[in-house]
Amino acid sequence: MIDEHRSRSVTRADVARYAGVSTAVVSYVLNNGPKPVAVLTKERVLDAVRVLGYRPNAAARALSKGSADMFGLVVHDNRSPFFAELCHTLDQRGTQAGRSLLIVNSDRTQADTAEQLRDLASRQISGLIISVALTASEQALVESLRLPTVVIGPFGETDALPAVSVDLAAGTRAAVEHLIEHGYQDIAFVGSAARYDARERGWADALSAAQLKRGLLIHTSFTYEGGYAAGVRLAEASPRPRAVFAASDQIAIGMLAALRERGVRVPEDIAVASFDGITAADYVWPRLTTAVQPLDQIADAAISVLLNPTPDPGLREFVPELRVRESCGCTPGRD
Amino acid sequence: MIDEHRSRSVTRADVARYAGVSTAVVSYVLNNGPKPVAVLTKERVLDAVRVLGYRPNAAARALSKGSADMFGLVVHDNRSPFFAELCHTLDQRGTQAGRSLLIVNSDRTQADTAEQLRDLASRQISGLIISVALTASEQALVESLRLPTVVIGPFGETDALPAVSVDLAAGTRAAVEHLIEHGYQDIAFVGSAARYDARERGWADALSAAQLKRGLLIHTSFTYEGGYAAGVRLAEASPRPRAVFAASDQIAIGMLAALRERGVRVPEDIAVASFDGITAADYVWPRLTTAVQPLDQIADAAISVLLNPTPDPGLREFVPELRVRESCGCTPGRD
Repeated sequence: MIDEHRSRSVTRADVARYAGVSTAVVSYVLNNGPKPVAVLTKERVLDAVRVLGYRPNAAARALSKGSADMFGLVVHDNRSPFFAELCHTLDQRGTQAGRSLLIVNSDRTQADTAEQLRDLASRQISGLIISVALTASEQALVESLRLPTVVIGPFGETDALPAVSVDLAAGTRAAVEHLIEHGYQDIAFVGSAARYDARERGWADALSAAQLKRGLLIHTSFTYEGGYAAGVRLAEASPRPRAVFAASDQIAIGMLAALRERGVRVPEDIAVASFDGITAADYVWPRLTTAVQPLDQIADAAISVLLNPTPDPGLREFVPELRVRESCGCTPGRD
Repeated sequence: MIDEHRSRSVTRADVARYAGVSTAVVSYVLNNGPKPVAVLTKERVLDAVRVLGYRPNAAARALSKGSADMFGLVVHDNRSPFFAELCHTLDQRGTQAGRSLLIVNSDRTQADTAEQLRDLASRQISGLIISVALTASEQALVESLRLPTVVIGPFGETDALPAVSVDLAAGTRAAVEHLIEHGYQDIAFVGSAARYDARERGWADALSAAQLKRGLLIHTSFTYEGGYAAGVRLAEASPRPRAVFAASDQIAIGMLAALRERGVRVPEDIAVASFDGITAADYVWPRLTTAVQPLDQIADAAISVLLNPTPDPGLREFVPELRVRESCGCTPGRD
C-alpha cells in the first residue's frame, strides 16, 4: 500500500509515544547507538516504526549536516567487468565508512557528463569518485563544485584533482616483456587511441628496449565486440603477429572468440597477454596472462582521499602485478 | 579546494545577482527549463555558478517534495554479469524518467539487508527495486516503508509486493527440451537449492514429459567458482551425464573451464545449455545456448510499476527466449 501522506506526517515523537519511550531512545534504536537499548525496548520501537510507517528522513539530516553520506560514482559503463568489480569494491569499502554509493553511467545517451556531475552535486553527496575521462570544461566544473573528489584511473587531463591510478605503462611493459621472454618478436597492440592511456607507450617502450620493431597497432573499443573486431583483423593480418597485448581482459576475451572461429590457435599461433585481472580471465580458455590491478588498494586509497581531503593530495599510483597463465604460452597449474 | 562554508552559504539569489538575471532565470538554466534561456545568458549564469561555487540543494528539494528522485536498487552482487547488465539497463531507463540509481549490494558483510532497506528509505528514495530474496520479516519491513516498490526476479515469498519476473520454469523447460531434441537422455541440473527458484522444477518437468529419468542434481553458488566446482563433479561423475542445464551463464562459464581442464569436450562429451543471455555467453567457447532474459522489458516494466503504483499491481512475468549456439551441439553461424 502506498500512503505517502500518512508516512510523511509521522514523526519521531509519534513513534516514541506509541512505543512508550523517549524520542532519544527512538534515535538510539534507529541509529544503532550511541547508547545501547534493551532488546525488548528495541523491538517495541521497531514495532512502532512498522505500525506507524515512520521513515526517518535522511533529506532533513542531509540539509542540517550539509551532506547525505553518499559517494557519487561516475563510471563509463558499470557492465564492463573491471568497472563492475571496482563498483563492488568501492561499495564494500564505502560501507565501512558509512557511505552508500550513487552510481552514474556516463554512457547514458540522455545526459551529458556535465549534467550528471551537477545532478550528483545537487544531491549533497559527501564525495565524488570519477572513473571516466573528463574534458577540460568538465574538470573545471568538478573543481567549482568544491566537493571532496577523487579520480580513479589514468585520465591525464585531471592534474588539478586528486587521483588514484595504476601505472598503465609499467603494467603493460611487464606484460610485453614477458611476451618477449617467450621469444616472440612480432608483438601487436590492441587498445585505446586516447592520449592519456599510457598502455600504448608501455608496449612501445618494452619493444624498443628489446630492439624490436613495433608490431601491428589496433585501436578498438573496450568491449567484447571491440575485442572481437580486433581479433578478426589479427587473424587476417599478413604476416600475422606472433603475439598481442590487449589493453583489457574484456578485449582479450572478445579477441579469443574471433581467433578461435578463424582457426588461429592461442598461444600456439598467437600468444596473448592483457590487462585488468578480472575474475573471468581465470575461466576463459586459454586463461589470460594479465597485469592485475590491485582493486582493494585502489578502492581504499580513493575512499581515504574522500574522507581525509588535503589541500594537495596529488596522485597515488599503484603498479599492477603480472599474473602468468596459459594465454602467453606458459603452463602453470590452477592454484 | 574544499571550502564547504562558502559553497553552503551561496544562494540562488547570489547567483542571480552576480549574473545580472532574475532568480527564475537561474532556475531555468539549472533545471533546463521550463522556459528557454538565451545561450549567452545561460553562459553567464553557469559562470556565476562556477565562480561562486553554488550548489543547488537536492536535499532541500527532497524535503519539500518528500522525494529525492532516486530509485534504490538492492542486488545481491553487482559484479555478477547478469546483475551488472540489469543495473545498467535500469540506470538507462530510470534516467529517462529523471531518476538516479542508488545501488546497494546485499552481499556486504557489514550490514544486513534490513538495515540496508531502512537506510535506503531514510534517503527519501522515490522507489525501491529489490532483486534479492527477502525473508518474511524483511518483506514486512518493506511493506511498512510504504514506498513504491517492485521486486525483480523470482523470489517467491514476496506475494504482497508487486513483482516483475521471468518464468524460470518455462525458460528452463525450453532449454532442456532442446537438449532432449538433440537425443540426449541423461541430463544433469546445476543450480540453486532455493525453493523459490523454479528452474529445477522446469528441468524435472521437461524430463518427465519426455519420460526420461532425472539426471545428476548439483546445487552450487551463482559464481564462476560455483560453476567450476560443479564442472569438476560432472567430469568425475560415473557414468558422466551426456548433457547439463546450468542455471546461469556465469555458472556455465565456470563449468566449461573445469570440463576443459579435465579433457571433457563440450558439446561432444557433454552438451551444455544455460540461462540469462549475458553478453559474454556469445564470446566463450563453445558459445552458450541459453534462455535469454528480456532485460529491456524487465527494466521498463519495473520502472513503470514504480512510476505508476497501483493498489494491486500483481506480477508481470516474461518468458525467456532460447538462443541456440554451439554448446548444445548445434552449429549456427555468428549473426
